Amino acid sequence: MAARSFNRSAAEMRPVSIEIGIQKFSLGSVLVSFGDTRVICAANIEEKVPGWMTGRGQGWLTAEYSMLPGSGQQRTQRDAGKGTNGRSQEIQRLIGRALRGVTDLKALGERTLSIDCDVLQADGGTRTASITGAYVAAALACKKLIAKGTMKALPFREAVAALSVGVIRGQVLVDLDYSEDSSAETDMNLVGTASGKLIEVQGTAEGAPFSTDELAQMVKAGQAAMANLFAAQVKAITG
Amino acid sequence: MAARSFNRSAAEMRPVSIEIGIQKFSLGSVLVSFGDTRVICAANIEEKVPGWMTGRGQGWLTAEYSMLPGSGQQRTQRDAGKGTNGRSQEIQRLIGRALRGVTDLKALGERTLSIDCDVLQADGGTRTASITGAYVAAALACKKLIAKGTMKALPFREAVAALSVGVIRGQVLVDLDYSEDSSAETDMNLVGTASGKLIEVQGTAEGAPFSTDELAQMVKAGQAAMANLFAAQVKAITG
Amino acid sequence: MAARSFNRSAAEMRPVSIEIGIQKFSLGSVLVSFGDTRVICAANIEEKVPGWMTGRGQGWLTAEYSMLPGSGQQRTQRDAGKGTNGRSQEIQRLIGRALRGVTDLKALGERTLSIDCDVLQADGGTRTASITGAYVAAALACKKLIAKGTMKALPFREAVAALSVGVIRGQVLVDLDYSEDSSAETDMNLVGTASGKLIEVQGTAEGAPFSTDELAQMVKAGQAAMANLFAAQVKAITG
Amino acid sequence: MAARSFNRSAAEMRPVSIEIGIQKFSLGSVLVSFGDTRVICAANIEEKVPGWMTGRGQGWLTAEYSMLPGSGQQRTQRDAGKGTNGRSQEIQRLIGRALRGVTDLKALGERTLSIDCDVLQADGGTRTASITGAYVAAALACKKLIAKGTMKALPFREAVAALSVGVIRGQVLVDLDYSEDSSAETDMNLVGTASGKLIEVQGTAEGAPFSTDELAQMVKAGQAAMANLFAAQVKAITG
Amino acid sequence: MAARSFNRSAAEMRPVSIEIGIQKFSLGSVLVSFGDTRVICAANIEEKVPGWMTGRGQGWLTAEYSMLPGSGQQRTQRDAGKGTNGRSQEIQRLIGRALRGVTDLKALGERTLSIDCDVLQADGGTRTASITGAYVAAALACKKLIAKGTMKALPFREAVAALSVGVIRGQVLVDLDYSEDSSAETDMNLVGTASGKLIEVQGTAEGAPFSTDELAQMVKAGQAAMANLFAAQVKAITG
Amino acid sequence: MAARSFNRSAAEMRPVSIEIGIQKFSLGSVLVSFGDTRVICAANIEEKVPGWMTGRGQGWLTAEYSMLPGSGQQRTQRDAGKGTNGRSQEIQRLIGRALRGVTDLKALGERTLSIDCDVLQADGGTRTASITGAYVAAALACKKLIAKGTMKALPFREAVAALSVGVIRGQVLVDLDYSEDSSAETDMNLVGTASGKLIEVQGTAEGAPFSTDELAQMVKAGQAAMANLFAAQVKAITG
Repeated sequence: MAARSFNRSAAEMRPVSIEIGIQKFSLGSVLVSFGDTRVICAANIEEKVPGWMTGRGQGWLTAEYSMLPGSGQQRTQRDAGKGTNGRSQEIQRLIGRALRGVTDLKALGERTLSIDCDVLQADGGTRTASITGAYVAAALACKKLIAKGTMKALPFREAVAALSVGVIRGQVLVDLDYSEDSSAETDMNLVGTASGKLIEVQGTAEGAPFSTDELAQMVKAGQAAMANLFAAQVKAITG
Repeated sequence: MAARSFNRSAAEMRPVSIEIGIQKFSLGSVLVSFGDTRVICAANIEEKVPGWMTGRGQGWLTAEYSMLPGSGQQRTQRDAGKGTNGRSQEIQRLIGRALRGVTDLKALGERTLSIDCDVLQADGGTRTASITGAYVAAALACKKLIAKGTMKALPFREAVAALSVGVIRGQVLVDLDYSEDSSAETDMNLVGTASGKLIEVQGTAEGAPFSTDELAQMVKAGQAAMANLFAAQVKAITG
Repeated sequence: MAARSFNRSAAEMRPVSIEIGIQKFSLGSVLVSFGDTRVICAANIEEKVPGWMTGRGQGWLTAEYSMLPGSGQQRTQRDAGKGTNGRSQEIQRLIGRALRGVTDLKALGERTLSIDCDVLQADGGTRTASITGAYVAAALACKKLIAKGTMKALPFREAVAALSVGVIRGQVLVDLDYSEDSSAETDMNLVGTASGKLIEVQGTAEGAPFSTDELAQMVKAGQAAMANLFAAQVKAITG
Repeated sequence: MAARSFNRSAAEMRPVSIEIGIQKFSLGSVLVSFGDTRVICAANIEEKVPGWMTGRGQGWLTAEYSMLPGSGQQRTQRDAGKGTNGRSQEIQRLIGRALRGVTDLKALGERTLSIDCDVLQADGGTRTASITGAYVAAALACKKLIAKGTMKALPFREAVAALSVGVIRGQVLVDLDYSEDSSAETDMNLVGTASGKLIEVQGTAEGAPFSTDELAQMVKAGQAAMANLFAAQVKAITG
Repeated sequence: MAARSFNRSAAEMRPVSIEIGIQKFSLGSVLVSFGDTRVICAANIEEKVPGWMTGRGQGWLTAEYSMLPGSGQQRTQRDAGKGTNGRSQEIQRLIGRALRGVTDLKALGERTLSIDCDVLQADGGTRTASITGAYVAAALACKKLIAKGTMKALPFREAVAALSVGVIRGQVLVDLDYSEDSSAETDMNLVGTASGKLIEVQGTAEGAPFSTDELAQMVKAGQAAMANLFAAQVKAITG
Repeated sequence: MAARSFNRSAAEMRPVSIEIGIQKFSLGSVLVSFGDTRVICAANIEEKVPGWMTGRGQGWLTAEYSMLPGSGQQRTQRDAGKGTNGRSQEIQRLIGRALRGVTDLKALGERTLSIDCDVLQADGGTRTASITGAYVAAALACKKLIAKGTMKALPFREAVAALSVGVIRGQVLVDLDYSEDSSAETDMNLVGTASGKLIEVQGTAEGAPFSTDELAQMVKAGQAAMANLFAAQVKAITG
């Protein structure tokens, strides 16, 4: 195996950090880093739901994802006037499902929780970092409402985080960076909860198809490494 | 367990049929049915590749997916003027990856293989039926070129098909229809090959998160049921 | 004169068939064929009208038309993100006018009748086949409401159908197929009613301008041949 | 019959005027009036054709049509950002066909003739006034090239003009104004040539369907009244 | 200094004319000319305001700007389907601010005043001519409501007009035409009121940056020349 | 006068900081802060120019501006699918003109310099902070090319920066924050160069029109305060 960035083993994540308060006018915001991948996550809450949901006594949660033009190795074009591109739409739908998977919409009340994930620097794993940071931003936003007395408790059943896993030259690696991602035979994104359950599993053969055994190994390695993420989330939220 | 449509067991698929030649002006076309889900798949081949691929001696494969407005329980709106919606884009990207996972683009030569999947009737599983039919349409189109002497052999390493699996009230069910899909706790789409390998695994918790064990059971049940699909494909292509 | 497809004379239509129930989740649906031209027509009814029409005690009827990408000799591009193209818009406005020309909107009540015409196979005359099939789909949808007891009688004053006529090398031909259409000096679309009246006449010189005499001959030939269409419609609706 | 505007008989047109040179930076331009309907027509010529037409030794002719927001009884919305609306697209396709019907594209040479029709004031018949004025603008533009010695002769086989005809309370009326148009049972647009031939006939029943006899009467009345238009065109071009 | 068009001095404007009633179906309309620059300005009033403004007892004023395709030296493309281009948006925002700068929205009442500026001929200064004409069109529209008794007095505190000023080869010139505009080192647009105040100053260095002194000279020259515009406005409104 | 944020006088700016290297994959990048207004500016260089500029031996410079959804007091909507909004377009055109005003495009060579300004936090003055930071990002990007030996010297004639000035209750204030901006009678943006010249002056009366005297005072105050910005730029570039 070639040396991995940050001198880490196959089973190790890149250094994780979650800096809070990056956008002071947002209710909750963080700058989450998985090594050189850095994502700005903001959570805001409106005291209403879309018209078609009014009167059901429950809330709504929506997520958007975008890359800043200067985030990657090549400047990327903005979506303005073209519509969100297919990849971004797919990712923002994933972020939304991940968060809704742990959210008690009744407990949220008739509010809309909007999450924005904007990639500042892209070095692989932007969607998994987004999900991990989005949960913290959402929790921080809700804590503000709790502090003001307009919300009783966090409307989340447990924490949610995400991580990529891949197979390169037959070896299972956790948290791929950009150069690893480009050469992986199989690429998987795992969305898991603090209690060890799964919300989403997306594995794709980029080269040769993969076997059921490889699938099982990837899931196992990913779940083990996720512990770091849940620890970093707790520290950021309670810190 | 409530009775399943077509009186089938938890491990059984709906009746599968693949009718060929549904669009006589397309190079390859089929009408694929998984029970009441019916999809028109057309494959066409252009003797050129997009500009940025020219001169590499390999081909390109692209897929599009759409639902006819009258295909579902409620009339759906057309995409014209709004751009393909997020769900359709996600599905057409999946179909493309599934087919590219078994295609030898060198063997295809400098050609573009375009696949169109248009849902005539939607009763759950439209994306898995699309992938299953798309492979047949693509193979039929290539057979036409082989018959004309401009292509040597099918440029596919093996067949690809897809199937949904889900968990309802704790039980693993294969090939969910619309009513089952709406009440599933977990929903998974499996894209597999004739040799028993996997190209894509997408499992999502719609209600409670799922465990690693449930993931393994779903994959196993899905792979077993896929045998029907590969048999139906062979019959349609060689028939 | 070159031999015409289906061995027919200048005054004869291609074989017509109208298969009902092609989309089981639509209220009314047909697959209409004029020779190799095949169009899926679906009719659906919503129990409301657009906001600006509310409270007038009458209904609304709208039509959309599109070609499946694999329907023609060359794959056509989808409208998504570009807006419906000019030709399609012109045709769907024509279909709407044709149907409204025989519809008693008061008798329809405060409902919206939506008609979708999607071309499965295109060999000339797709707009005339669409109008002919749309009327049947609309009638079948209304019959469902009559059977349920929520509508009293069909809200149509009489049947409407359509047919193309053209002049090739000075001779008047009825129901042009694609190859005839491409070489016609004049191309006309006639929309007529079962009682022998006209709802729309659209004649265009593609090559040399035409005379008033030629106009009269084309109309006469078209009206004569329309009898087949009204017969096929009656059979499909009452069958 | 109610008195008609400008005290005219059923068979008479509104006063016609064609003022030339309304846009001094366009190669050819006119302000054409049919009574209170006033349209600005500009013709410009580029010394090239679209890429796909290059090398065929013939030209291309294209037309666009739009209404100024303040042209009608109600301010209309601009097309910007929405795409040309269906009605405008249908009209600009009609204007293009009308002009191409008399143009010798070989004689035009490898040039693109662009025609813009912008409605300054709308009182019925904007499409027929547009066609009538567009021919003059196009001829004036070509005369400029002839004067410069880069074109030999006008590339038009003869003049083209257009007129509406309608049936109101059973009577055939020529050149409907807005209030007549709104109450017509049948509305027809005729595009004819100076030699008495037809390029386009579009008749639509707005209320009850019409008979073959009525069709013939409308065509006859329209062709008779067109003489005024051809006279006004000659005067404007040669004046 | 090269001779200026219309034999004018550096401090003189081109001939100004304001022709009223150019669009008889608009409430107020003018054709304003600054030399060969000619703009159609229409003002219309709706008896309501956008939803979010309802109930505040005040009105709204909005402006749009566009160039007719045949207005310039080169045919320009229409905005349809592309969205208003950046330059047009910037200009229509400027026109709106200019008019709102003199409008008493309370006195306007719960009405929306829409202003459309469409450039018929473009020879430099289209935005300044638009503002100058827009004020007259707006005043004429309000006079109609006053005449009908539904408005008490003009809701404008004073008149507003606009003018360009520039520096060419070190000399300050007023009201640049197209050829001057193209070679100006600095280009400024001044929006001023009849009482000698300023509503907007926009000066841009096209070549070398400019000094504070040059800025002061340009403003002074522009304000002096504006007297002509206020005189022409009074004549058009009271004429 | 109400106390100003950061305890500053009418003539003082907010604290300015320019942090470099905020996006490690961009050639040049900064996070510029004017108090609580924070903008990410990235500069990237492509070794080619748009097709129409090729072969002229000079470069091209383009700028884009956007606000992150969570940057302001209220979450703002993304531009995707709607096109850049009018305000953003106007600002990005201003940023482009400001930078081009000091750039020697010949010295840049046949390269495209792209500048992206994304607002992280918005508290007034985002466009002036963007211009100030964009110049530094551009200079840093060019320094990278100089270090690699592919560029000889910075292609800028001098530094460019920008600042807002306003009048509140008759007093001239420099560098307005959001709350001041909302209550200003006049709002001006000044773009100036290190040598004391002006590139752009944009003053707008938000309430009552302003006088020539007020204009002169605002320009003077703005130019004096700009010294801070040029100092901060030098430190960031040479640091």
